[in-house]
Amino acid sequence: MPQLRRDPITGRWVIIAAERAKRPEDFLSKKEQVPDEGCPFCEGSENKTPPEIFAIRNPGTKPNQPGWNVRVVPSIAPILRIEGKLNRRGKGLYDLMNGVGAHEIVIETPKHIAHLAELPPEQIKQMIDTYINRIADLEKDTRLKYVLIFKNYGESMYRHSRSQLIATPVNPKLVKEELAGAKRYFDYKDRCVFCDILKQELDAQDRIILEMDGFVAIAPFASRFPFEVWILPKDHSCDFPRLPEASRLDLARVLKITLSKLKVALGDPPYNYIIHTAPFRVGRKSGYWRTIEDDYHWHIEIIPKLTRVAGFEWGTGVYINPTPPEEAAKYLKELEI
Amino acid sequence: MPQLRRDPITGRWVIIAAERAKRPEDFLSKKEQVPDEGCPFCEGSENKTPPEIFAIRNPGTKPNQPGWNVRVVPSIAPILRIEGKLNRRGKGLYDLMNGVGAHEIVIETPKHIAHLAELPPEQIKQMIDTYINRIADLEKDTRLKYVLIFKNYGESMYRHSRSQLIATPVNPKLVKEELAGAKRYFDYKDRCVFCDILKQELDAQDRIILEMDGFVAIAPFASRFPFEVWILPKDHSCDFPRLPEASRLDLARVLKITLSKLKVALGDPPYNYIIHTAPFRVGRKSGYWRTIEDDYHWHIEIIPKLTRVAGFEWGTGVYINPTPPEEAAKYLKELEI
Repeated sequence: MPQLRRDPITGRWVIIAAERAKRPEDFLSKKEQVPDEGCPFCEGSENKTPPEIFAIRNPGTKPNQPGWNVRVVPSIAPILRIEGKLNRRGKGLYDLMNGVGAHEIVIETPKHIAHLAELPPEQIKQMIDTYINRIADLEKDTRLKYVLIFKNYGESMYRHSRSQLIATPVNPKLVKEELAGAKRYFDYKDRCVFCDILKQELDAQDRIILEMDGFVAIAPFASRFPFEVWILPKDHSCDFPRLPEASRLDLARVLKITLSKLKVALGDPPYNYIIHTAPFRVGRKSGYWRTIEDDYHWHIEIIPKLTRVAGFEWGTGVYINPTPPEEAAKYLKELEI
Repeated sequence: MPQLRRDPITGRWVIIAAERAKRPEDFLSKKEQVPDEGCPFCEGSENKTPPEIFAIRNPGTKPNQPGWNVRVVPSIAPILRIEGKLNRRGKGLYDLMNGVGAHEIVIETPKHIAHLAELPPEQIKQMIDTYINRIADLEKDTRLKYVLIFKNYGESMYRHSRSQLIATPVNPKLVKEELAGAKRYFDYKDRCVFCDILKQELDAQDRIILEMDGFVAIAPFASRFPFEVWILPKDHSCDFPRLPEASRLDLARVLKITLSKLKVALGDPPYNYIIHTAPFRVGRKSGYWRTIEDDYHWHIEIIPKLTRVAGFEWGTGVYINPTPPEEAAKYLKELEI
């Protein structure tokens, strides 16, 4: 069983994924990329994955058979497991709990396509539908507090386009910090900090990459990484899963164009994207004088992997970015794709 | 001039190092390692670096000439600059200041040796003396609040053993978090959290790698990375630069053995070490009912670079570690070097 352990100084949680346990020699050999013909995520290879949790399927097709557009399966090397009790406990001054949670793989296409930007917007829209469906299902599990949906592109054994979902029984540190920061701003200003950022950026224009169909892609003022991009909905909302059906194809288009621009500009680099959304069941009851609905604003953060994080960043949490976001935005805005 | 910019949501500072500015094409080509004969850090190549700031020299030798044991020079690509005013200012809802600070390179040996563990303890002791000398000098500059000493081994253009020092005009986020966490513990317990960790670890023994001459090397309970190691002094002290002369050779020996074990166990991996020490001029005045001297405890964190940080970590701040620290400690403890 994986364990969640809390650092007694900073309070940060760490997942000790002991079932993936690695001995020193495991780090000495490099993982090889699996040849394309052995891909377990392609249509027709459904028996190479654990049984599916969810799929968007053609009418009349059966689970774990061909005929799907988007398919969700459990991770074969889950960092958190859905079975069991949390058993929060102490050990001397240390705090720990069992690694209960969920770890799922969202296979974004039945075809062997590597980059999300190569999929048609209608297919990306079905991926968004799937994200929202899985979040709604996991939110029912009261042991879970947060779900993170993210993509690690370009650094894995398999090339097939997919994303991951990890649901955690604690609110992660960075999520808490972002929520606390947004609340602090709202307490002072009575306005959402993300809405204010959007307004200031749309006035100034020098960090805007794209403004289209209710979404804005910006290079954030304090970008940690070169060519970091955030996509924000113009309409205020704290919950990604409440994105109306009518806006999902718009988001798919904006995501496709933004990822295409990064791919072309930077020579198809590895990248991560991460959906930042409000935690489950927090502060949305009516009757409060202020709720998370007022002060938080969901968004997607995209991080191309161009530089290494080294000693200074690990020691300070201060990032060194060699590319001013104004230059990144100008380049990406002007790039025709 | 580099700029320090603050993220308006989380409050984290970022350094936009515009003079290192990188266009998209700069990320496309890989940096080559410079051949050993072109090394600018070797004795006899003093004219290939900026003029030295400090050196431990043989009697009768002149600055910027051969005859040194440890030598400190400014970085040729400084991420912060010593000249100028901070000029803290706002721009709409954003906060920024000029990138004032210091960025120095500590050349740890006149010989072309790559790994610190290959140096004799007496040489490593002189490196520690040099760190302490530079911290004392930079603390006099009242614009500066913190100095971070760190090493990035194995991922740079040059192989010559060296470390870096960056002094910042703000207290970095992770430093603040560690200080706040240590204070919170002391407020509750009236004891130093690091002293309590040492006591519990020495009782349990299962995460102890080395205990020697007043220092302890442990695999921390909530290790973020496989084979992460912390070295702590057994005697409580918040300030690394107040390490007594008599203990410096002991620390050199413990550092050498620990780094040797990691090198042998893991096949000479890239690694970072970072000295965590108290900020300049904070909370050390007598007369307070509690001071930073009581609750903070300097230490060194060593991070072998064996795994990648990906979307989940960037989105949550929760690290996934595939090697339980108990296993790492057992392996490193038993390894004969």
